[in-house]
Amino acid sequence: MKRKIRMGMVGGGPGAFIGAVHRIAARMDGEIELVSGVFGRDAAKSAQFAEELYLDPARGYADYKTMIQRELAMPEDKRIDFVTICTPNFCHYEIAKAFLEAGFHVLCEKPLAMSSAEASDLEALVKRSGKMFCLMHNYTGFPMVRQARQLIRSGALGTVRKVNVEYSLGWLAAPNAGKQAAWRVDPKQAGISGCMADIGTHAQNLIEFVTGMPILEVSAELATFVEGRSLDDDGSVLLRFGNGARGVIFASEVATGEENNFILKIYGDKAALEWQEQDPENLIIRSNDAPIQVLRRGWPGTGDEAARNSRLPAGHPEGFIEAFANIYKMFAESIRSGKPGDYPSVADGVAEMRFLEAIVANSNGTEKWTRIAP
Amino acid sequence: MKRKIRMGMVGGGPGAFIGAVHRIAARMDGEIELVSGVFGRDAAKSAQFAEELYLDPARGYADYKTMIQRELAMPEDKRIDFVTICTPNFCHYEIAKAFLEAGFHVLCEKPLAMSSAEASDLEALVKRSGKMFCLMHNYTGFPMVRQARQLIRSGALGTVRKVNVEYSLGWLAAPNAGKQAAWRVDPKQAGISGCMADIGTHAQNLIEFVTGMPILEVSAELATFVEGRSLDDDGSVLLRFGNGARGVIFASEVATGEENNFILKIYGDKAALEWQEQDPENLIIRSNDAPIQVLRRGWPGTGDEAARNSRLPAGHPEGFIEAFANIYKMFAESIRSGKPGDYPSVADGVAEMRFLEAIVANSNGTEKWTRIAP
Amino acid sequence: MKRKIRMGMVGGGPGAFIGAVHRIAARMDGEIELVSGVFGRDAAKSAQFAEELYLDPARGYADYKTMIQRELAMPEDKRIDFVTICTPNFCHYEIAKAFLEAGFHVLCEKPLAMSSAEASDLEALVKRSGKMFCLMHNYTGFPMVRQARQLIRSGALGTVRKVNVEYSLGWLAAPNAGKQAAWRVDPKQAGISGCMADIGTHAQNLIEFVTGMPILEVSAELATFVEGRSLDDDGSVLLRFGNGARGVIFASEVATGEENNFILKIYGDKAALEWQEQDPENLIIRSNDAPIQVLRRGWPGTGDEAARNSRLPAGHPEGFIEAFANIYKMFAESIRSGKPGDYPSVADGVAEMRFLEAIVANSNGTEKWTRIAP
Amino acid sequence: MKRKIRMGMVGGGPGAFIGAVHRIAARMDGEIELVSGVFGRDAAKSAQFAEELYLDPARGYADYKTMIQRELAMPEDKRIDFVTICTPNFCHYEIAKAFLEAGFHVLCEKPLAMSSAEASDLEALVKRSGKMFCLMHNYTGFPMVRQARQLIRSGALGTVRKVNVEYSLGWLAAPNAGKQAAWRVDPKQAGISGCMADIGTHAQNLIEFVTGMPILEVSAELATFVEGRSLDDDGSVLLRFGNGARGVIFASEVATGEENNFILKIYGDKAALEWQEQDPENLIIRSNDAPIQVLRRGWPGTGDEAARNSRLPAGHPEGFIEAFANIYKMFAESIRSGKPGDYPSVADGVAEMRFLEAIVANSNGTEKWTRIAP
Repeated sequence: MKRKIRMGMVGGGPGAFIGAVHRIAARMDGEIELVSGVFGRDAAKSAQFAEELYLDPARGYADYKTMIQRELAMPEDKRIDFVTICTPNFCHYEIAKAFLEAGFHVLCEKPLAMSSAEASDLEALVKRSGKMFCLMHNYTGFPMVRQARQLIRSGALGTVRKVNVEYSLGWLAAPNAGKQAAWRVDPKQAGISGCMADIGTHAQNLIEFVTGMPILEVSAELATFVEGRSLDDDGSVLLRFGNGARGVIFASEVATGEENNFILKIYGDKAALEWQEQDPENLIIRSNDAPIQVLRRGWPGTGDEAARNSRLPAGHPEGFIEAFANIYKMFAESIRSGKPGDYPSVADGVAEMRFLEAIVANSNGTEKWTRIAP
Repeated sequence: MKRKIRMGMVGGGPGAFIGAVHRIAARMDGEIELVSGVFGRDAAKSAQFAEELYLDPARGYADYKTMIQRELAMPEDKRIDFVTICTPNFCHYEIAKAFLEAGFHVLCEKPLAMSSAEASDLEALVKRSGKMFCLMHNYTGFPMVRQARQLIRSGALGTVRKVNVEYSLGWLAAPNAGKQAAWRVDPKQAGISGCMADIGTHAQNLIEFVTGMPILEVSAELATFVEGRSLDDDGSVLLRFGNGARGVIFASEVATGEENNFILKIYGDKAALEWQEQDPENLIIRSNDAPIQVLRRGWPGTGDEAARNSRLPAGHPEGFIEAFANIYKMFAESIRSGKPGDYPSVADGVAEMRFLEAIVANSNGTEKWTRIAP
Repeated sequence: MKRKIRMGMVGGGPGAFIGAVHRIAARMDGEIELVSGVFGRDAAKSAQFAEELYLDPARGYADYKTMIQRELAMPEDKRIDFVTICTPNFCHYEIAKAFLEAGFHVLCEKPLAMSSAEASDLEALVKRSGKMFCLMHNYTGFPMVRQARQLIRSGALGTVRKVNVEYSLGWLAAPNAGKQAAWRVDPKQAGISGCMADIGTHAQNLIEFVTGMPILEVSAELATFVEGRSLDDDGSVLLRFGNGARGVIFASEVATGEENNFILKIYGDKAALEWQEQDPENLIIRSNDAPIQVLRRGWPGTGDEAARNSRLPAGHPEGFIEAFANIYKMFAESIRSGKPGDYPSVADGVAEMRFLEAIVANSNGTEKWTRIAP
Repeated sequence: MKRKIRMGMVGGGPGAFIGAVHRIAARMDGEIELVSGVFGRDAAKSAQFAEELYLDPARGYADYKTMIQRELAMPEDKRIDFVTICTPNFCHYEIAKAFLEAGFHVLCEKPLAMSSAEASDLEALVKRSGKMFCLMHNYTGFPMVRQARQLIRSGALGTVRKVNVEYSLGWLAAPNAGKQAAWRVDPKQAGISGCMADIGTHAQNLIEFVTGMPILEVSAELATFVEGRSLDDDGSVLLRFGNGARGVIFASEVATGEENNFILKIYGDKAALEWQEQDPENLIIRSNDAPIQVLRRGWPGTGDEAARNSRLPAGHPEGFIEAFANIYKMFAESIRSGKPGDYPSVADGVAEMRFLEAIVANSNGTEKWTRIAP
């Protein structure tokens, strides 16, 4: 019998939305089997949740150090192959480091770390260890995002000139937005930024993923609209790219009434594209000399990259979990093959931390443009 | 350790889109474990595909009779709890019968059988056997379809007057549409109808599910646009309901360019609703005295039925597979509890066969209205 | 100085929505000048309203006979060239007849008359008189409707197979819907049909205009949902065309919450098109082998017929009045040139009356299909 | 007989899109009569075009000075009441000044002038003269824009926190975009800015109109993407308002494939609104505790300001010209009443010039924020 890739988790206990998403996504294609994890604050709670997940309760551990120790003690054919880290930001670094050093592959939630120094450190460690590392920027898993990248690579847009990204949520519009919200605006847990770390990095990552162009300079204004918060709940950033292209990121978590309004528009000198996360099956192509084209997942005119990341025929909506699952699928293949795959890497994690540090510095300072450390 | 519900499959071998969907859907919530099935025309192919699915190859059987015999011979803690039947229509009846008689629960693809007589027979058998039976009409699993039903039950639409359902696909517009298409227009495999059995029954089922009103009389025109086909590839039906309500079903598989265009509009004397499968997170509510409301999965204003059938926060698109998985989840609960759940039943299968027989008879005959057998 | 075409009106006094639309539309391009009319029940009211319209009050007449007499008495360089008739249906025939016989061109609201006999009579009279006659089916004036027709004529859709038209309004969902509604469901004023005469004829006319295919046979159910009404407020019709094509018209004036939901979908064996009156700048083209195309008024890929009926660049929305004005513009050119133009004619009025008579007879009778008199 | 308001024009000769729009808009409600103008480079061309417009050719003048002189020489009951100025930007000031000084009311295209000094000068002159002055920002004429303003004034959004405006066009993406484009990027004719003067001012004006909040500080990057242009063809601006609100303007005329993509999103602490010029009949309202509402022109829930600026029932699309005509209608009432109306004023013209000067200075300079002169 073929064997499934074995997965462990740190974080994602009861009530954590994103933990459940990781589990469904990992399970979706039947290639990965969750076998252990740290699912709660103490051993009893962790064991209990493991059992709810149909796992051996003995593999619901009290903390990540115990987990590493106990997994290493297991026979190889039971031991986890990789760990998923979906804790608040501040633990990413130390947990990822520990698992890498213990010889496990790692899949880590974004943002990668609390600083670019931590991030670079991890980058070096990944290189030394030879282990596979995936930074979960799930939006890169959407088939029509892959299609967007393929179109740009193929030259269909010509030279990219202008990028317009909007990522707005309303969930932090009021002061008390629940436990999931609390840690995201607490500097100890989230780091130097709230909104921009949470969603601004998605915008930055998606822009760079799709265009292949790194952001070089930023001019930003981060804002805190709800009194009493220590971190930004909103931010706007002007962007400059190496080829003279410009861009804007509009990000907000106080955008009342918005659910998860993530919109990407990229204008080239030949054509332009638009993708919306809340309508993810469409990729709209506009040009000055032809009718609007709506490329659809699964339909003629949509290329092989989208097809590879798709499970259903056109018209049968795929969504958020499938995009997530695409990243897991590629990561599992990567573990089998021993070769990095086409998912966000630890280097993207370094880039996102440098972006964050640049916009925070710029917003707090008086200079107009801040260059992102290369 | 808690145990998962164990599932077998008949049908859904390599290349069958809907078989893969069943597997992903069953797996999604981690409550069900696929353990065996008939996945190919002979034992070798079936075993091979079982292995591809990470199953014990010995549980990839040559045919459903062998499967029953071998599963019955297994210890109870390994034996399947239920079987999913996703073969072409003509085998549903005999396979479902055999598994029910052998004491297994059954989940069967639609349409239930080849005739209402077969369907009634199964209905009686289900009753006698005390086994759980689910007819897979996956569209009833969409959260916003559940929301639509809840609104109508709550009286929010007032008295339903008019129903407008459109279900159009383009995939059979040309003569050779592949293997998946071939059996659907072959009377031996599909039965008395092609298009209407394939998608017209979805329309009929969804109307009755959401409104709670059985269709009483029909006036229909079934058509075959592509030469050489023995069965309809298109059909239009006028509907009458018991309370004086009227309706229209527009169904076509030669609607060039349509992917899976399933639209439900229901007009009451107080308000109306619209739901589109290709945009399934929205439920649009219209009335004569208020602005349009767009109810969204996961957002305030959307009720508990939708919430129970939902995994992600608003704005993180769920789709086709999640709807499918909702049915599986309810069916698994049903098997655990021994009580039928809120999913389409064998009685709905009888209703769909009577509907099909009525529209075929009406379309072939000269009478204007045909009453559906009660 | 060039002279404008001079227009008179019968109907369209204070409060009549469609009368105001006729005036704005006629005035839009500066080619037509309203100079007289019957705007009220008596001479005083008519004169008063004429003055409100900046006309000579003496040319606000008490009734259409007086109007004809007085206009004929005017010097030729003051006399109207044509009259617009926008009274309730029952007067169309006699007024149109009188003006034609007096030597005036006529533009008449739809439906043309109270019966196909009256309609044929008018047709003969128009022929004899040599006068220009326009039946106001304003929807044929939308640029993207013209584009749709051009595409079908060019063969872009291949052979038309199926037509799906929906025209739904909610305005008659409750018993008392105001004065504008009252006459439309009064047999003395509206004729043999309410809803179908009011909007079903728009559907029939638009189908025939765009496809160029006459409807041959119908099977219909007209319904009256609001108690106390003598005429239908709702109707569904199955259609057969000469080439084997089929279709459905879904029409309702009790479709609660709908404003003016007029949707046209036409499926050919090569491609399909969709146009929605509430989003009139788009024409959606679908096929089985290419991405969706959205043709836009004023944008590359949209042809010369649309361009001729357009005033603004793309992205600057045109709407209902512009479509109306396109018909007026063509009619004015027709009057100048003495040649019928590309607008609905008296023959289309005959066709619409025969369609109406056929669906009413079919709905009241027991035969399944009723042939429309050729 | 009542008399119409008499209008003259400077600019808007053959081929000028916006001139034709002014004429149709002015004519729409039958309250205004175009009687004279400067329609060409010399007397003959001007007279010829006047005749094409059904005017007395003698009132097609060679230049605006002649026009003033000759109109003043006319008897009062023939003389124009006001002039519309729709020339390139650089002549606005001197022409407006001359007509005001001659005692005529003035309607002027935006941007008002070439500098804030010119603008202030005009403001003072308008005050001294007692004449009516309207700055044509047509987007303020859309019914649902008025509705947006009414909602914000009523407190329905709570405190405005964030504004997101996008105005993108593709028409200047290539070097040679025609005569209409040429003057807009020529500093002599357009002034200190190209794209931002042309459409950025629309964004600034609409924000201030709808929110009632002046923009206090800006941080901007203007860009020129097409080689050889002297002025910006693109610009992004961060905004600060007095109450701590922030905003972003994304404007571009090199946004390939965009027609006239003008989108306004305003987020308050209670609710948010979205309006799109290319879908102008909808106003979308979002909040964190209720379903999405789509307010529609003409439908219940939409208030009296929209109603006053509307001609047709809901579902009968109104568009760009109607919005334009609303401004003309208010201006005509203003002339009759002698009281300024609810349309953009000369003070708004001063504000737009100060905004322009601030963003140009900021973009060229090194300071992060530039305060707009009060």
